[in-house]
Amino acid sequence: MSELTHFDDSGASRMVDTSAKRETERIAVASALLRMQPTTLQRIVDRSISKGDVCEVARLAGIMAAKKTSDLIPLCHPLPITSVTIDFAVVSPTQLRLEAMVKVVGRTGVEMEALTAVSVAALTVYDMVKALEHGLTIEQIQLEQKHGGKSGSFHRETTPPHPSGTPS
Amino acid sequence: MSELTHFDDSGASRMVDTSAKRETERIAVASALLRMQPTTLQRIVDRSISKGDVCEVARLAGIMAAKKTSDLIPLCHPLPITSVTIDFAVVSPTQLRLEAMVKVVGRTGVEMEALTAVSVAALTVYDMVKALEHGLTIEQIQLEQKHGGKSGSFHRETTPPHPSGTPS
Amino acid sequence: MSELTHFDDSGASRMVDTSAKRETERIAVASALLRMQPTTLQRIVDRSISKGDVCEVARLAGIMAAKKTSDLIPLCHPLPITSVTIDFAVVSPTQLRLEAMVKVVGRTGVEMEALTAVSVAALTVYDMVKALEHGLTIEQIQLEQKHGGKSGSFHRETTPPHPSGTPS
Amino acid sequence: MSELTHFDDSGASRMVDTSAKRETERIAVASALLRMQPTTLQRIVDRSISKGDVCEVARLAGIMAAKKTSDLIPLCHPLPITSVTIDFAVVSPTQLRLEAMVKVVGRTGVEMEALTAVSVAALTVYDMVKALEHGLTIEQIQLEQKHGGKSGSFHRETTPPHPSGTPS
Amino acid sequence: MSELTHFDDSGASRMVDTSAKRETERIAVASALLRMQPTTLQRIVDRSISKGDVCEVARLAGIMAAKKTSDLIPLCHPLPITSVTIDFAVVSPTQLRLEAMVKVVGRTGVEMEALTAVSVAALTVYDMVKALEHGLTIEQIQLEQKHGGKSGSFHRETTPPHPSGTPS
Amino acid sequence: MSELTHFDDSGASRMVDTSAKRETERIAVASALLRMQPTTLQRIVDRSISKGDVCEVARLAGIMAAKKTSDLIPLCHPLPITSVTIDFAVVSPTQLRLEAMVKVVGRTGVEMEALTAVSVAALTVYDMVKALEHGLTIEQIQLEQKHGGKSGSFHRETTPPHPSGTPS
Repeated sequence: MSELTHFDDSGASRMVDTSAKRETERIAVASALLRMQPTTLQRIVDRSISKGDVCEVARLAGIMAAKKTSDLIPLCHPLPITSVTIDFAVVSPTQLRLEAMVKVVGRTGVEMEALTAVSVAALTVYDMVKALEHGLTIEQIQLEQKHGGKSGSFHRETTPPHPSGTPS
Repeated sequence: MSELTHFDDSGASRMVDTSAKRETERIAVASALLRMQPTTLQRIVDRSISKGDVCEVARLAGIMAAKKTSDLIPLCHPLPITSVTIDFAVVSPTQLRLEAMVKVVGRTGVEMEALTAVSVAALTVYDMVKALEHGLTIEQIQLEQKHGGKSGSFHRETTPPHPSGTPS
Repeated sequence: MSELTHFDDSGASRMVDTSAKRETERIAVASALLRMQPTTLQRIVDRSISKGDVCEVARLAGIMAAKKTSDLIPLCHPLPITSVTIDFAVVSPTQLRLEAMVKVVGRTGVEMEALTAVSVAALTVYDMVKALEHGLTIEQIQLEQKHGGKSGSFHRETTPPHPSGTPS
Repeated sequence: MSELTHFDDSGASRMVDTSAKRETERIAVASALLRMQPTTLQRIVDRSISKGDVCEVARLAGIMAAKKTSDLIPLCHPLPITSVTIDFAVVSPTQLRLEAMVKVVGRTGVEMEALTAVSVAALTVYDMVKALEHGLTIEQIQLEQKHGGKSGSFHRETTPPHPSGTPS
Repeated sequence: MSELTHFDDSGASRMVDTSAKRETERIAVASALLRMQPTTLQRIVDRSISKGDVCEVARLAGIMAAKKTSDLIPLCHPLPITSVTIDFAVVSPTQLRLEAMVKVVGRTGVEMEALTAVSVAALTVYDMVKALEHGLTIEQIQLEQKHGGKSGSFHRETTPPHPSGTPS
Repeated sequence: MSELTHFDDSGASRMVDTSAKRETERIAVASALLRMQPTTLQRIVDRSISKGDVCEVARLAGIMAAKKTSDLIPLCHPLPITSVTIDFAVVSPTQLRLEAMVKVVGRTGVEMEALTAVSVAALTVYDMVKALEHGLTIEQIQLEQKHGGKSGSFHRETTPPHPSGTPS
């Protein structure tokens, strides 16, 4: 019997075994930053986009996407998440910032769920304003915080996004 | 009978009617740019991440996500896409670039499908290297090109991503 | 070879063959009527439910559910629907009415899509007000209109829902 | 930094945090009542609908839908349900009644799962008899019972559905 | 810019481009053969399994799975299938044979849909009898026929499954 | 009230109640055996199929399918699986063997998850080589081992698959 050894330890994808981990509360926070024309952002704030209330639609899309994370990311564990919230903030005349917080009581963390939530919420914003401009860019998706579990907390040392919209 | 008029023209979300549009071939190209530690990127290139072959897993995740776009983005139309390809390129010692091209013969375009493909592929890269670092940032997701349909073509006037990693 | 004939013509479920049908535009309209306490309905109208904007969340849930119809109803054909709209109206101090219109250019109609849209939208209203009352009842889900296809149009002969809330 | 405060406490949708709740057994029972022509109902009872055994197909659709509840209802928590049963009863010559019971050992209840189960089962009955009549109406979907959890039990004070089909 | 050329022509997975293909009617037939204890098969035929009518449940599972093929097989195209039927036959005291026929009017064939339908139907039979025996084996899943499209027809030259259960 | 008693104890499908079972670690191992032309198998081993790396794509498809088991098999319970691995071995010049191991800490076992994983992985292999041959047969899908839970362990007494490809 010849094993296909090149798929072995160094190469085979797998869902990592979490059976022996304890169920503890875990929290993750992720953010996305969108850049667009000032007139586009103004219409979002004024809630005057013809397709509907942009932030509310994006928020729901993000919440629902958090629940689909293990269906989207091949090696993610399915997790019975217990909380999702998504907040929006205008951080400059051309920048909208999204932040998602996800919680679970489970055997592994929810950073992928938080990142998926802000990503899909950001894509939904794009979808709803694309009749106004195709230039909208998602310019930063990243983990902000992570707590719970054996590997300890993570808290990004970060300067807040520059209102002027010029990341260093 | 009192209509909830505040959900009317100016506010109600809806799936825009495409029934009267003609079926034509439509193409969209989107990109994502990831920034990470040079050692992390080197291990991706060397295909030595313990969870598996990062780019291949990410590519499949992106292709499968393109097919789920209308399930993720609330007001997107379901479309029988006819082609998805995803390419990877190392554009600096700390930057990996993903590009997805999606095609359809349909009544509306596939820019959301291309953007969803690169976003989920990028999230999958994050998932597979997060044991190495939590600092990986998706720093640019955007539409590159769009062709077909009545609204004409879009081609981003873009300078290539700066190897130095300092977006203007 | 003994056929399990009891699963034959008289009993075997199947997805009916629509291959020979022509692609034509098809439209369906369905409605749902919800009955609840006047104070609950007032809070929906006032948009003061703590979980969010009830009608907007329900509308999005209904639109997304229309796209999942063939995944929910076992023998439904998958259809690339081209339009979904959902409207809300307060028809009495205790009754909220939902109406969904769905369109497709396809080989079979979309009445199940319209019925699924209003049903899931109605369930979502329930979900969002259930902290206020568990007594909310969905008291009428039905097809209102259907057009297109060989079988001709259907238009329900209906008296409008009674403001007093006493169905005949 | 200007917060979009109008999406704040009074308006932002969110998945309510259940992390601090205890896992206990929870049960919910929901019902749906369908009205149709006596000849249609007779053919369901006789199991002589060409598409298959109506109640069995509807039962399976309802069971599978219960598992998809958190995918359909935007703010529902995903729950590892432990039991679903769906029963049918002919309550008058024109009325078929469906009742679903769902159980879970979890941090929140399963009333949405029970309501979703009967709703999708009822829609499936419609789908299977729509070649006979389009007039079939789902005339009552409601929660019957709910047990477990801190908020206590709910038991609808209800007169049984009237065989004559005239709800009070 | 250094391309990751090892993911290039010889290795990168992709959804093959079917945009230029013509929409034609395409049909595929696939089969699965299950081997089990004679007492188990007898109870299926007698419809006396406590979980329900085995073949009917398996048939519905197979039909629904056909609709999910592009969600399960990573590089499959989504297709608006127009027909699915699944038949069962007892071919020996220990063998149950399933056959699925799937049709589409589309740009690519439906052999994966037919194979997925019989596979999931066969798994469902296993699920429903596993309280009786764990030894049930799915011993042959294969394409039987394929018609339509440019590549011509395929018709397996096959001897019928041996009642004695001894494949040559 | 006339009960449809023929859907009663002897016939009604249901999701079996596992609420009273204890959460314990459960493991299942299932296998699939594929037979194909030696030249096809050689190209898989050489990783020279134009659609991509066959085993890696199949492995991911199998892992993702394990997570969808309760969505595919109508009466399966949703389970938060904690581990999935899939291995490949060439067991003769014409036979490729797949083996999946799935774990969970839950109230019921994961044999359906393991069987679904190998089945979908095997179908994916078929999909990727079907341009080379349509004759590929999945010739054996079966449970190999099962541990955990009250019903005790199962370990198939099996002779290894014959390299010559002639099952007894």
